[in-house]
Amino acid sequence: MKIVRTITEMQEQMQKLKSEGKTIGYVPTMGFLHEGHISLMKNARPENDIVVLSIFVNPLQFGPSEDLDAYPRDFDRDHKIAETEGVDFIFYPSAEEMYPGNASVKVSVVERTDVLCGKSRPGHFDGVATVLFKLFNIIQPTRAYFGLKDAQQVAVVDGMIRDFNFPIQLIPVETVREEDGLAKSSRNVYLNHEERIQAVELSKSLKMAKLAIENGERNPDEIVGSMKNHINENTTGTVDYIEIYSYPELERLKTLKGKVIIALAVKFSKARLIDNTILEVE
Amino acid sequence: MKIVRTITEMQEQMQKLKSEGKTIGYVPTMGFLHEGHISLMKNARPENDIVVLSIFVNPLQFGPSEDLDAYPRDFDRDHKIAETEGVDFIFYPSAEEMYPGNASVKVSVVERTDVLCGKSRPGHFDGVATVLFKLFNIIQPTRAYFGLKDAQQVAVVDGMIRDFNFPIQLIPVETVREEDGLAKSSRNVYLNHEERIQAVELSKSLKMAKLAIENGERNPDEIVGSMKNHINENTTGTVDYIEIYSYPELERLKTLKGKVIIALAVKFSKARLIDNTILEVE
Repeated sequence: MKIVRTITEMQEQMQKLKSEGKTIGYVPTMGFLHEGHISLMKNARPENDIVVLSIFVNPLQFGPSEDLDAYPRDFDRDHKIAETEGVDFIFYPSAEEMYPGNASVKVSVVERTDVLCGKSRPGHFDGVATVLFKLFNIIQPTRAYFGLKDAQQVAVVDGMIRDFNFPIQLIPVETVREEDGLAKSSRNVYLNHEERIQAVELSKSLKMAKLAIENGERNPDEIVGSMKNHINENTTGTVDYIEIYSYPELERLKTLKGKVIIALAVKFSKARLIDNTILEVE
Repeated sequence: MKIVRTITEMQEQMQKLKSEGKTIGYVPTMGFLHEGHISLMKNARPENDIVVLSIFVNPLQFGPSEDLDAYPRDFDRDHKIAETEGVDFIFYPSAEEMYPGNASVKVSVVERTDVLCGKSRPGHFDGVATVLFKLFNIIQPTRAYFGLKDAQQVAVVDGMIRDFNFPIQLIPVETVREEDGLAKSSRNVYLNHEERIQAVELSKSLKMAKLAIENGERNPDEIVGSMKNHINENTTGTVDYIEIYSYPELERLKTLKGKVIIALAVKFSKARLIDNTILEVE
């Protein structure tokens, strides 16, 4: 496995591999790898000749109230995990390497952002899109792997790939879950014993919504209402949002039809958990 | 020579060639090819395995007062010229193919635009950058060729390639000139006999400025003043602008130093002519 820190070297390596007809699977991360990331690498490995992992804590996607310096980092641990998962290259640039000076061209996300988690993080997806425009041009992947836990990010990446014709296949990867259905998250450790038991109700409420739709319910307000009741009655958490949109457009629907996402965020005493499900409605 | 009209086919063709290690030289145009474009093709041909010409009248770079429909088009003539110049592919998409619906991500140029010709064309370079982000991802060129007649466009493209790490070498190509020094332009035919004779004073004034700098002049206001006088005294045209900036940053300078551009635009009765020179000042 090779660790590359400069854009020039990374581009040269990738250019060479592409000119030899190699396919490149790419897993972008901010490091501090967890089972979600590992699942992305496990998906990428058999589908591509070369697997590239990037580790870059992107300052642009942090808001003024979000603590960039406090973001957890552990390169040695990440390095070992990548080695175990058969990664070929880690791209590990500094912030100075990625953003050497003022940019003369800006990228902004104008749709799919002012809902779900994006609503409370203005500018977040502009930062995500900007760094991905750069990383996609640096890595030039055949396929890029993103976890569906952050379904809004997948929707934004889908939009930018379509709008700008990146020659990249977006591979959304299913959320990894605990035995009982709770979506895996580094934040789950902040749940106390009681909350950990209650937290299963989040994925359960999504399953109930799915079942209601299968049984003919098409009114999103009805579904959101039942889910809210379920979570309020069965947990001590506070619902931050429960929303249903078309996917990946993230547009409001009066009647459910086509591909839709049901997504929720619930605040417990020390952890805010998110989860979602995407389904096709006839 | 192959004419390709869809993005999917173009990407497939280019991907295949790149995986075989071929280099791709790219000449983006809006068609109605003239000697400037031919010079770009002649530069691209010997430097690359494959030469791609795109012909796309990009609606996004026309302002509300600029007549998109009146833009001249002659595909048959362009086709013949491309054939003669040894072009391998013409990418010739429709507007619907390039812009099938509302974009969720936008590109905007925030520097290098509010000077020179960009000052009077707000949004123009946003449109240029947007279509080039797409075309670069579709064609995936090794080298992209742009004429220095439109030096501001070259500066904007330089900015976007740097900011977003496109793996593309920008090749600026010298302005093609008539025997007497007048920069070639499809607009020159709108000059009457008198004006055509006077028009040589534009490139002459640039040469005078260059000479003044060689003789030690470092004050941009002095140089602009002399050039204005020269053009006012020797032509019936009206100076639209004469400006000097750092290049390619297009920032104002108090004292000339480093790479600078001297650029001008002069209005004659039925044609507005532009010209520029770029030079290194010690």
